[in-house]
Amino acid sequence: MVAKSMAEDIGFRAALEEAQKGASEGGVPIGACLVSAEGKIMGRGHNMRVQKSSATLHAEISALENAGRLPASAYKGATMYTTLSPCDMCTGACILYKIKRVVLGENNTFVGGEDYLKKRGIEVVNLQNAVCEELMKTFIKEHPEDW
Amino acid sequence: MVAKSMAEDIGFRAALEEAQKGASEGGVPIGACLVSAEGKIMGRGHNMRVQKSSATLHAEISALENAGRLPASAYKGATMYTTLSPCDMCTGACILYKIKRVVLGENNTFVGGEDYLKKRGIEVVNLQNAVCEELMKTFIKEHPEDW
Repeated sequence: MVAKSMAEDIGFRAALEEAQKGASEGGVPIGACLVSAEGKIMGRGHNMRVQKSSATLHAEISALENAGRLPASAYKGATMYTTLSPCDMCTGACILYKIKRVVLGENNTFVGGEDYLKKRGIEVVNLQNAVCEELMKTFIKEHPEDW
Repeated sequence: MVAKSMAEDIGFRAALEEAQKGASEGGVPIGACLVSAEGKIMGRGHNMRVQKSSATLHAEISALENAGRLPASAYKGATMYTTLSPCDMCTGACILYKIKRVVLGENNTFVGGEDYLKKRGIEVVNLQNAVCEELMKTFIKEHPEDW
């Protein structure tokens, strides 16, 4: 187990990089990164709604998918970093894999399943990060039809 | 709007065909099919855990993904047919897309988010279909490591 702050740095930085990558591709700028209990990145990804016309590749789903098929034990103590409050599908995905903690960048743009995550025993941390919020603000202003 | 029984036939038959296709590929034999309010198949698919080493392509996610990116209005009144009670992720996906009804093949093998679907206003129908259950029984017996 590494210090929480170090994992936080690695995980949140990767999620934010993914969101910025999404923005540079003209996509919905939401990124996510799954970090193990040991502080290692298991998978990272960003929303692919625009890029792949995907209905399901939200950032968290992309991160889980890119982590590959793993034994249930691999997710033990893992944290999902995401730049935006997770929707109902991504909330369910975190519950399915028994993720320990969800760290979200902000929830001013959208409030997802935070309460349900907590109800299901998952710790939720909101960083209220201005960069995450600004990415979404810019995207919604420039591409209202894609939000 | 077509008669519910006709849509039920089309949707459930397609979901079962998908489950059987999954079985023939050596995969987890769970299939799903999304049917519109008008009774048209929007997307169908099966679990790809084994075939693609996928952590997220459950049957319902595959069906939604194969339906492509659609406007929210396309899901209005839609029914998700699935051969097995949906897991938390797939439950969340049905909630996200405001699916009207979830028709599941059986829940003897596994009980998923049925109560939560109902709580979120989604109708749940359980067909308790013996063919769906037998597919799962055979798979779990032959591939216990994959279930």
